[in-house]
Amino acid sequence: MEKPLILVTNDDGITAPGLRMLITIMKKIGDVVVVAPDSPQSGMGHAITLDTALFSKKMRIDLDNDDIDEYSCSGTPADCVKLALQELLPKKPDICVSGINHGANSSINVIYSGTMSAAIEAGIEGIPAIGFSLCDYNWDADFTHAQDFIATIVTQALENGIPKRTVLNVNIPKLEKKDIKGIKICRQAKANWKEKFDKRTNPMGKDYYWLTGEFELLDKGEDTDEWALANGYISVVPTQFDLTAHHVIQELNTWSL
Amino acid sequence: MEKPLILVTNDDGITAPGLRMLITIMKKIGDVVVVAPDSPQSGMGHAITLDTALFSKKMRIDLDNDDIDEYSCSGTPADCVKLALQELLPKKPDICVSGINHGANSSINVIYSGTMSAAIEAGIEGIPAIGFSLCDYNWDADFTHAQDFIATIVTQALENGIPKRTVLNVNIPKLEKKDIKGIKICRQAKANWKEKFDKRTNPMGKDYYWLTGEFELLDKGEDTDEWALANGYISVVPTQFDLTAHHVIQELNTWSL
Repeated sequence: MEKPLILVTNDDGITAPGLRMLITIMKKIGDVVVVAPDSPQSGMGHAITLDTALFSKKMRIDLDNDDIDEYSCSGTPADCVKLALQELLPKKPDICVSGINHGANSSINVIYSGTMSAAIEAGIEGIPAIGFSLCDYNWDADFTHAQDFIATIVTQALENGIPKRTVLNVNIPKLEKKDIKGIKICRQAKANWKEKFDKRTNPMGKDYYWLTGEFELLDKGEDTDEWALANGYISVVPTQFDLTAHHVIQELNTWSL
Repeated sequence: MEKPLILVTNDDGITAPGLRMLITIMKKIGDVVVVAPDSPQSGMGHAITLDTALFSKKMRIDLDNDDIDEYSCSGTPADCVKLALQELLPKKPDICVSGINHGANSSINVIYSGTMSAAIEAGIEGIPAIGFSLCDYNWDADFTHAQDFIATIVTQALENGIPKRTVLNVNIPKLEKKDIKGIKICRQAKANWKEKFDKRTNPMGKDYYWLTGEFELLDKGEDTDEWALANGYISVVPTQFDLTAHHVIQELNTWSL
């Protein structure tokens, strides 16, 4: 059987340790092509580049991977996927994997996530896609415990196919491998960020703000990604890009419009 | 009765004609505070600023509006809303309106939309919110025909309340007022962009790409926003930020994980 073609991308940039680990895992499963941002793009949401041109460069990052094609791209994660599919890949990939993100993309964070925007962009284009994130913001985070789980999820996705117009949002708890209890299919927990701006004044007397905040879980369900992660499971949330709140259409039809 | 406090924002920047028109309409309904990006932010999706500080400046753009507070912000549309709610507004607003965008945000465009990301950010924070877009990319677009319809939708939203964890995505066709047939509650049409990159070489011999594309409607339904707009209606899509594809959870539970 022909090996599957796997597009690997991320939002932390082409040199990020999480991406390098994902490449290593994917090379055991299929033929890998990497198209990733040339600089960190965290918090980029589903941004795309409309006002400037995109540059792309063929790269060689490490000797272990001189057998695969790697490209950096000056754009956002969504741009990387668009450029990969239209210009850089030899054919349509069998799957697109994004990550491994340095930091959680569970619950409401999916909205802000560059990692997931790359996966969603692939999903919009009809490519099976999965975003992987580790609940550890550290650049030196240990990803080794995640390897087998990621391989299993990708293999299952290739075997079963991901349901149409859905991409998977996978989050991995910061635990040792022996403490991970398994993989759980979940829904996105209701949560938000309680923002606090740290207001400062620069040497020229001009005020500026740093965004900080505390995560606030508003959901006691035991079927959520946050519950799974807090209880030692890897969470998998099927994520869609039809944002219609179909269940409220009837109510809105009672308005006097 | 006290007048409602209305937060007005957008993604085209604080000087955009669409924003100025929205301010004019909102001033007849309530007390207005404007917090908008200091530069155009189209296609920013739900980006937020994590790596740099935000600057904000109290502005006076035109003499007609010297009775309201206006602030520009160096960040994205989502940043503007966060900063407005935490730092700039005197109290929690009764509603947040974003736009009027120069260009459509119907169907899949909602994913890339800075206009809608501002509305969604407000929605996440529990504020009723609506994004308005005109299907005309022209900076000199004529917004006058939209005025009464926008006033009606905002007034109805204030009277009835927008269903929880939902924001409204309103698109207005490029038509004369007499040709607009009414307002329709819709679902997001299935569609995507058939991208094409325009590849060029710069004077230094380096390749670069401009993103172009054609909109591809994949949906024949007559209950969609694209159908409504093509048939002379203003479309209103209730939009949610729970991205879970609840209907596929059962299928994923059959995987060998």
